[in-house]
Amino acid sequence: MKVIVIGATGAIGKAVTEELGKRHEVVTVGASSGQHQADFTDIAQLRSLFAKIGKVDAVVVAAGALHFAPLASFTPEQFYVGLNSKLMGQVNVALAAQEYLNDGGSITLTSGIVAEESILNGVSASMVNSAVEGFVRGAAIELPRGLRINVVSPNVVQESMDSYGPFFIGFEPIAASRAALSYARSVDGAQTGKVYKAW
Amino acid sequence: MKVIVIGATGAIGKAVTEELGKRHEVVTVGASSGQHQADFTDIAQLRSLFAKIGKVDAVVVAAGALHFAPLASFTPEQFYVGLNSKLMGQVNVALAAQEYLNDGGSITLTSGIVAEESILNGVSASMVNSAVEGFVRGAAIELPRGLRINVVSPNVVQESMDSYGPFFIGFEPIAASRAALSYARSVDGAQTGKVYKAW
Repeated sequence: MKVIVIGATGAIGKAVTEELGKRHEVVTVGASSGQHQADFTDIAQLRSLFAKIGKVDAVVVAAGALHFAPLASFTPEQFYVGLNSKLMGQVNVALAAQEYLNDGGSITLTSGIVAEESILNGVSASMVNSAVEGFVRGAAIELPRGLRINVVSPNVVQESMDSYGPFFIGFEPIAASRAALSYARSVDGAQTGKVYKAW
Repeated sequence: MKVIVIGATGAIGKAVTEELGKRHEVVTVGASSGQHQADFTDIAQLRSLFAKIGKVDAVVVAAGALHFAPLASFTPEQFYVGLNSKLMGQVNVALAAQEYLNDGGSITLTSGIVAEESILNGVSASMVNSAVEGFVRGAAIELPRGLRINVVSPNVVQESMDSYGPFFIGFEPIAASRAALSYARSVDGAQTGKVYKAW
C-alpha cells in the first residue's frame, strides 16, 4: 500500500510511520517537516498536496493544535484554536482525501482519551476529540467505493510526558509504538466508523 | 427557581418552557422571539442578557443551526454553520452563565440522537452533537460553587417531522413533551456531566 501520514514528525506520527513502513510505502507530510509540507487548516493546500502525490491507499492524520486552560478563563476564541486545527484540519483531510483514495482505501484520524475522560484544563480537548469521533461516525456511512474512516483515541504517550505530563497525572502513559498499532489496525484492517481506544 | 430558556419558541423549547413552568419562573429568550432577544453566537449579547435578567438558578438551551448535506458535497464553510451556531452558541451560553448562576445552579444544553446514530446527510450533526457532549463532560468537572452542566440528546420530535422527517426515516419520533422531561431531570435533579438520552 501507499500511505500518507500527516503529522509524521510528531511523537505519534513518527511511531505510525515506523509501524506502517514495515509493510507499506509511507509518504510523510508535516506543517514544516516531512517529505511534503502542507497547512491542513487550508483545504486548498491539501488538494494540491494530494494531486501532487497521486492515488494512495490510506491517509493517516496525527496532528492538530488544542488550547488548554481553566474553564473559568476560557474564551470563545481559544475554543476556536482546536476547532480550526485539530477538528477542521482533520475534517479537511477527510474531505480532500475522498477523491484521491483507491477503492477500499482508508482515512484514519486522531482524537484522544480526554474525549471520554475529562481532565482539568481540558474542556476544549474533550469537545474537539469528541467532535472528531462524531465526524467519523457520520462520515463512515456515506463514503463511497468501500472507502473507510476510523479514529484512534490515544492515551497520553510516554514521548509527550515532558509537555503533557502535568495535565495527565494518574494516567498511565503508553509508548507511541503501542498507539501506532491502532493506526495499523485501521489501515491494514477492514473496519469502518470505529473508535480505536489505545489506552 | 428562576430559569432562563434560550430557544424557547422552538418545538423543544416550547415544551421545556411548559414543563418547567409548572414549578418554576421561566424567562424565555429567542433570536427574534420570547421575552428577551439575543444572538447566542455573540457572547457579548449573552453577557448583556444575563446582566439584565440577573441571578438565576438554571439556564437551558434548545437552539442551534446545523447544515445537512451529503458528505461528498460538504464544504468546510458548511461545517462551520453548526460549529458557530449549535456548538459555540451553546458554549457561549455556558461560559457567560457561570457568573450569573446561583450556587448549585445548572446549565442544560442540547445535542441529539445523531451524535451516536449516524444518518445520511448528517455528518455535521454527528460532529456537532458529539462536540456538545464532549464539552459538557469537560466542563462538568471544572464548574465551581456546585454548578452543574448536563446535555439532553433528543430523538427527532413529532413536532419537527414536517421538516426533519425525511432525514429520520425509521426513527420513532417522540413528543416534545417527552423530551422536555429530560430537561426537567437536569434542572430539578442533582446530576452533572450527564448525557440524558431522550430516545
